[in-house]
Amino acid sequence: MDRIANLCKRRGFIFPSAEIYGGFGGFWDWGPLGQKLKENIKAAWWRDFVLLWDDVVGIDGTIITNPKVWEASGHATNFTDVLVECKKCHHRFKGDDIGQTCPDCGGQLTEPRRFNTMFKTTVGPVEESGSVAYLRPETCQTIFVNYENVRETMRMKLPFGIAQVGKSFRNEITPGNFVFRSREFEQMELEYFVPPAESRKYFDEWVTRCRQWLVDHGIKPEKIQLYEQKPDELAHYSKATTDILYAFPFGKGWSELWGIANRGDYDLRQHGKMARGDEQVFATAIGDDPLAKQVPYVIEPSLGLDRMALAFLLDAYDVVTGGRTTTTESTKEEEVVLHLHPDIAPVKAAVLPLSKKPELQKLAHEITQKLRRSWTTMYDETGSIGRRYRRQDEIGTPFCITVDFESVEGGKRPQGTVTIRHRDTMEQEVVDHNDLVAWMHERLG
Amino acid sequence: MDRIANLCKRRGFIFPSAEIYGGFGGFWDWGPLGQKLKENIKAAWWRDFVLLWDDVVGIDGTIITNPKVWEASGHATNFTDVLVECKKCHHRFKGDDIGQTCPDCGGQLTEPRRFNTMFKTTVGPVEESGSVAYLRPETCQTIFVNYENVRETMRMKLPFGIAQVGKSFRNEITPGNFVFRSREFEQMELEYFVPPAESRKYFDEWVTRCRQWLVDHGIKPEKIQLYEQKPDELAHYSKATTDILYAFPFGKGWSELWGIANRGDYDLRQHGKMARGDEQVFATAIGDDPLAKQVPYVIEPSLGLDRMALAFLLDAYDVVTGGRTTTTESTKEEEVVLHLHPDIAPVKAAVLPLSKKPELQKLAHEITQKLRRSWTTMYDETGSIGRRYRRQDEIGTPFCITVDFESVEGGKRPQGTVTIRHRDTMEQEVVDHNDLVAWMHERLG
Repeated sequence: MDRIANLCKRRGFIFPSAEIYGGFGGFWDWGPLGQKLKENIKAAWWRDFVLLWDDVVGIDGTIITNPKVWEASGHATNFTDVLVECKKCHHRFKGDDIGQTCPDCGGQLTEPRRFNTMFKTTVGPVEESGSVAYLRPETCQTIFVNYENVRETMRMKLPFGIAQVGKSFRNEITPGNFVFRSREFEQMELEYFVPPAESRKYFDEWVTRCRQWLVDHGIKPEKIQLYEQKPDELAHYSKATTDILYAFPFGKGWSELWGIANRGDYDLRQHGKMARGDEQVFATAIGDDPLAKQVPYVIEPSLGLDRMALAFLLDAYDVVTGGRTTTTESTKEEEVVLHLHPDIAPVKAAVLPLSKKPELQKLAHEITQKLRRSWTTMYDETGSIGRRYRRQDEIGTPFCITVDFESVEGGKRPQGTVTIRHRDTMEQEVVDHNDLVAWMHERLG
Repeated sequence: MDRIANLCKRRGFIFPSAEIYGGFGGFWDWGPLGQKLKENIKAAWWRDFVLLWDDVVGIDGTIITNPKVWEASGHATNFTDVLVECKKCHHRFKGDDIGQTCPDCGGQLTEPRRFNTMFKTTVGPVEESGSVAYLRPETCQTIFVNYENVRETMRMKLPFGIAQVGKSFRNEITPGNFVFRSREFEQMELEYFVPPAESRKYFDEWVTRCRQWLVDHGIKPEKIQLYEQKPDELAHYSKATTDILYAFPFGKGWSELWGIANRGDYDLRQHGKMARGDEQVFATAIGDDPLAKQVPYVIEPSLGLDRMALAFLLDAYDVVTGGRTTTTESTKEEEVVLHLHPDIAPVKAAVLPLSKKPELQKLAHEITQKLRRSWTTMYDETGSIGRRYRRQDEIGTPFCITVDFESVEGGKRPQGTVTIRHRDTMEQEVVDHNDLVAWMHERLG
């Protein structure tokens, strides 16, 4: 974990937020490569769960929301943590995590007290009680309150889904484990509304689909496991929840990566009651009979993007002692490779002219610009070719395209050809530079 | 404007935030088509100003930021508005907009008072003065505080740029004009760091590039104009600012769409002083001489995404009285067309089987799924073909692909061909369905 955090800092994936001011506890700024990594995860998820489907659409709701939303959902009263403070060293702890004395100094603890973990603000020019609002602690409520607007305007029929990607905020007492638990984070949520009688079937389908998605994107199957929550572990709104756990290198060894919940009709009933005084107001036609209406159940496969990005980094991380890059002088030197799935890798290709000769630079620049129309492409002409491979291996770039003298003048290879080095196998492949875009499209879509 | 707001509501572009609770002043939820519209604007902007360039990288910083950031930037003390309230009707007004009496009821106004328009919250489990933080009122400060981290980890040399797209928050006294001025909005900012001596040259280049980008994406040239701010209008940090104004249908007829500012070295100096006690700490090598160092100037072409989306919608909106869709029965009926640039249009193609015969549905579904790998594609089989064209015209879909009996059985046209209707010209083009992906790639990249 420390090595990942170090790599993230050194190569521009993740920085402590506003680090020049000493950071800010529980907040992280994503650097150039981290921003790309997150974008790619979002894009792959959105394509596979939204774009390819007739029955799923997206929305983008606000972060600051009408406070009634959180009264109806129960967050205003129930979204609390238990806080205790050490009377001696004044460190603070989450009350359900610890015993009678301070784990840091052995001092006496205060009585536990509940506090709401939603961030509060006031809207409008005067701070008064009527103007209190909250930063959303989860994106799904913005979906529920837009249920009727989306269903009507997009002419959706059950079953159908509404997806959203966006930031959420929780005032955690103890943020930690790098970006695993932070106070500001991004969620990818999808609410799939179904006829109540069929909710178990859809729930099981979603568990299978989500697990498969991870494996399809390169997560090692032995690093994930399913955990079905027992009845006494379920949240009050949930009929069933299965967590996909990942073998994160902290805590008990397995922590939640993705939760698939059958939320039943709890949320739509609550908002119906609060907004219109009628729990049944969002009842929707089941099948073709317009009179057969029920408040739909909702299956929620919900995912934290920052946590997913961390899992991808941990899973892809590999250290080899020497020998990977052809010109590494000391074979004892450690070489880092991120075996990221090509869809997820922040940089898809690096174009490397073998020398700084203008004719090589010219062709390499041409290739770079052509690839950039569709993929994030780096151009790098500094350092030995082995060193440049290592730079790319370390950030997980799947393809390094080398432009050499034969590319320009011909020789053993036909003129116009370049060599592509594959990150994982280190195989070299010869491709005509005019065919590169098609070659990349075949591998990256 | 009312017609646009109505269209946005009816077709799922934009809804009042949490409308079932009566909305929330100054906040808007973007529905399925609005979310797509914003995504497409971001993607086009990011491609043209970030991806295609060697010298621009992106970041994704936090919304809740270390409060020192806003002390250094000056926001904590200066980001204020003047508020007055009517003593009779208690309506509130921005003080610099009005005269001696209430514009609503003629009542007497309170003395003007300043209040800070940053949203405030508290971080950590206890509300105490040390834990106050702000929601960022602009994304650019997150860029400035990451300047050194990004420059080092990405090995950037002047001139280079850092871009960011994300939400910002301003507690406006009088939000309004639909999504033109809201309390939660999204910004697309780019900070381009340059040697001070060359800042005028780069400033002029950016003004030209930004204006050209609008025209290239279909904004009518006669609807935009450049306005160079006079010395007494400049913000305190600015050496020069040119606004690109758009002919929005409110206010004085022209309002700011895009501001290009030469911020000089104000921000990096401020953060250097506050974080390290040295205004010069972010001095950076100019050219190849490592000893020639200066704090760079920064050119900032900054854009509000919501405002840009509104401009695209207004600019593309057109009403024709009848005759566009072949089967419109009454030629007097009004038909709405959004002439959006294909890169910006939320839906790129609609696949329309002429009837519900299974063989037509099958081919139409196949085509839909193939296109969906790369583009947002709608499948629609309900209603007359004319009606379906109108639905698509109204949301700006550039290409309607009709699958008819000849597509399946052949006839006047070869078997396997479909007809593509172009939204703007209403021309019909015959294309083999196997060539559709290539046909779309040619037009949409």
